[in-house]
Amino acid sequence: MKQGIIENLITELTRLPGIGRRTAQRLAFFILSMPDEEAKGISRAIDEVKDNARFCRECFNITENEVCSICSNPSRDKSRICVVEEPSNIFVVERSKSFDGVYHVLLGSLSPIDGMTPDRLKIHELIERVRKNSVQEVILATNPNTKGEMTAQYVRELLKPFSAKVTRIAYGLPIGGDIEFADEATLSKAIQGRRDF
Amino acid sequence: MKQGIIENLITELTRLPGIGRRTAQRLAFFILSMPDEEAKGISRAIDEVKDNARFCRECFNITENEVCSICSNPSRDKSRICVVEEPSNIFVVERSKSFDGVYHVLLGSLSPIDGMTPDRLKIHELIERVRKNSVQEVILATNPNTKGEMTAQYVRELLKPFSAKVTRIAYGLPIGGDIEFADEATLSKAIQGRRDF
Repeated sequence: MKQGIIENLITELTRLPGIGRRTAQRLAFFILSMPDEEAKGISRAIDEVKDNARFCRECFNITENEVCSICSNPSRDKSRICVVEEPSNIFVVERSKSFDGVYHVLLGSLSPIDGMTPDRLKIHELIERVRKNSVQEVILATNPNTKGEMTAQYVRELLKPFSAKVTRIAYGLPIGGDIEFADEATLSKAIQGRRDF
Repeated sequence: MKQGIIENLITELTRLPGIGRRTAQRLAFFILSMPDEEAKGISRAIDEVKDNARFCRECFNITENEVCSICSNPSRDKSRICVVEEPSNIFVVERSKSFDGVYHVLLGSLSPIDGMTPDRLKIHELIERVRKNSVQEVILATNPNTKGEMTAQYVRELLKPFSAKVTRIAYGLPIGGDIEFADEATLSKAIQGRRDF
């Protein structure tokens, strides 16, 4: 027998990460109860992303335009570039409201063992941006793990010939955390990175 | 400035229950990475539900047809009707694989204080089904709370003139639970409902 439309919606929703059958069912019945326009706002948003998403020509953020909304925003400081691994990382930094420069997405991190060599990343494009523009600071915000660290070090070496200052986001204890539960590596980094107080 | 397509998808997804900004962001980037056909399967499923969902003529389950897949399934036992409050409850009972009869959805429960009087529910339609068909058992599976209990009692009274047996799903300790954590009302019902062993 053909699957019903509700069963079908439930099945489709379980494709999403972290959405099990039970949650999918709750979502499906919620969608059923939503005003038509609201529910279709969701489906339209999905279609638009699939139809129109592409990489920003400048920074490789996701956008529907040639250039993303951050790169095309005249009030963003173009002299500081925050380098991240993935477009989603931009949202995290933006949410922190602690950076008003622009970004550069590498679209991955170095991992030669997995075939992720420098040419697979947007490293060359970053160097070109630094070369062509008067960039004062490059903040390396790759992940605080082996691959991210290796990537940061690799990029730092390539940036040495330029006058731009190269910085790395700080390692340390998470705010609201408890020293008791900090792992040794983090605590060691937090002590090494101690600051005058 | 116009919101970007990813930001828009994130905003749209936060309309769903239990989906905060962080989860919506994770989902949006996952959708972005999905094959086109898979992602559009989700949006199509949403549209189909919004465009085609209606109530089954027999039992008021959600369906895209005149009669739902359960009512039109010849292998379901039409002589036993399980009465539930909402279409979503049918999924829960179906998942338990403990019932092969048919359903009747009341589309709510009695709550005179909120204006939910018997005429707002599909109670009349249930009585008519019992009157017209040779129904042997009506299982009242309304919620185990005040409104559900009131609804069950009301329906039971109306069914008294008929020969159909009227039953109520059992109250008791949830399987896998711990007596230590059972609330007094549940424990009291579990003791009242004790069975030979």
